[in-house]
Amino acid sequence: MVGFQGEPGAFSEEAAIALLGEVETRGYRTFDALVEAVVRGEIACGLLPCENTIAGSIARAYDLLYANAVHVVDETTHRIEQALIGVAGAPLDAIETISSHPVALDQCRRFLAAHPHATPVAVEDTAGAVRAVAERADERHAAIGPPLAARRYGASVLLPSVADEPENFTRFFLVARDPGARRRGGRASISFVAPHEPGSLRAALGEIEDRGMNLRSLVARPRGGNRPFEYVFHADIEASGAEDVAVLAACLGPEARVLGWY
Amino acid sequence: MVGFQGEPGAFSEEAAIALLGEVETRGYRTFDALVEAVVRGEIACGLLPCENTIAGSIARAYDLLYANAVHVVDETTHRIEQALIGVAGAPLDAIETISSHPVALDQCRRFLAAHPHATPVAVEDTAGAVRAVAERADERHAAIGPPLAARRYGASVLLPSVADEPENFTRFFLVARDPGARRRGGRASISFVAPHEPGSLRAALGEIEDRGMNLRSLVARPRGGNRPFEYVFHADIEASGAEDVAVLAACLGPEARVLGWY
Repeated sequence: MVGFQGEPGAFSEEAAIALLGEVETRGYRTFDALVEAVVRGEIACGLLPCENTIAGSIARAYDLLYANAVHVVDETTHRIEQALIGVAGAPLDAIETISSHPVALDQCRRFLAAHPHATPVAVEDTAGAVRAVAERADERHAAIGPPLAARRYGASVLLPSVADEPENFTRFFLVARDPGARRRGGRASISFVAPHEPGSLRAALGEIEDRGMNLRSLVARPRGGNRPFEYVFHADIEASGAEDVAVLAACLGPEARVLGWY
Repeated sequence: MVGFQGEPGAFSEEAAIALLGEVETRGYRTFDALVEAVVRGEIACGLLPCENTIAGSIARAYDLLYANAVHVVDETTHRIEQALIGVAGAPLDAIETISSHPVALDQCRRFLAAHPHATPVAVEDTAGAVRAVAERADERHAAIGPPLAARRYGASVLLPSVADEPENFTRFFLVARDPGARRRGGRASISFVAPHEPGSLRAALGEIEDRGMNLRSLVARPRGGNRPFEYVFHADIEASGAEDVAVLAACLGPEARVLGWY
């Protein structure tokens, strides 16, 4: 059983199926609920988005990984294709409303502007918008959302891609309680604290680079609380050996943690 | 005239007024439209959010600053207080719908769960939700949004803070075409490209730290196109002299750019 955040048919579920095949899936309302379900063993693993080409790094995902006893065991990059979904055969000029999450509507501004006879309607969830359209079965109502949702709920993809920006990719971590679940090696995620002292981040990056490990991404998060100038850094790196990564973590201070080697 | 992204009464307009007093303001639909309006001189400056304590860095803001002929001339940190807004004197148990942007509804899950007689309704915009409630003037309908929107549209704050997490702050840049608009000094934002070579980021951070400039935040953004492993880094630093910052930029390579000294 693989968990994801969202309603059945969400882009995260698409990514889970693209990575793992036709597995059993379960949707959770929030990232927190998804990670908690992995921690208590309710699901074998969960798919957690960590970066999107338009929005940037998803800091909350790294915070959750750092704070919980889970491990990154794989990763996958999935193309987000906002599809126009409605009743099979519905002509475009018959459509009166197009519902979706406000972020998805915003990504499809040009398409919506070119079809002013259809009123955009904000709803809580892209897949939920598709479900509502399928239940209504009225060609005047369409949704923008994931093609998988059309399949899940028995609606039709009227146009496969209506987003302004075609290059929209999300990178996901596969997260499990058991660090050995699926690891293939070559990549690692590691978190460490850089104190508010000159040169502390540079020294940490030196530890990484002196081992010949390339940096793939770096996310800085304030620690909060009484340490306003201290940051937790989450680094994704290229690293061929799990032992090398463990030694690296030992050099990055007592609060460093390997989030996964995969 | 100061621009912000959102409807009149949005949190960004609140932040503009907190920073600059009761100035004339104008709302823009997107970050892109806001920055374009500054570039072509339609507004003297604009308030652009760059970081939120819950969501992390707002990568799109840095991308826009790097790509456009504008300058950061000041910054401010504003507390986001999600208020319950409705008709003056409306009793809580009379409320049947509570509308807001899905992200705001999500930030108020505990409050909504404790008031199951009120149905959450997703809409495109928090301030727009408040405007609709004010126009309807029916005590059965309330919204979650900025207190300023209640003032703008003539609705009442029924509860000042209904978010689960009280610590919700957004940091904003004040952006202008003229780099000297408001600068006070002490902080700088600088962008640079680190090629996909071992040690390139570390060398860049060395240039910063060897000058005694502390790093406040660091955002990594893939360059895209044909350079999939090259990153643009956006660094916010403590830097007392504008000339020091200019020299630093010269040392960080031909693609480095000072986004502002403020």
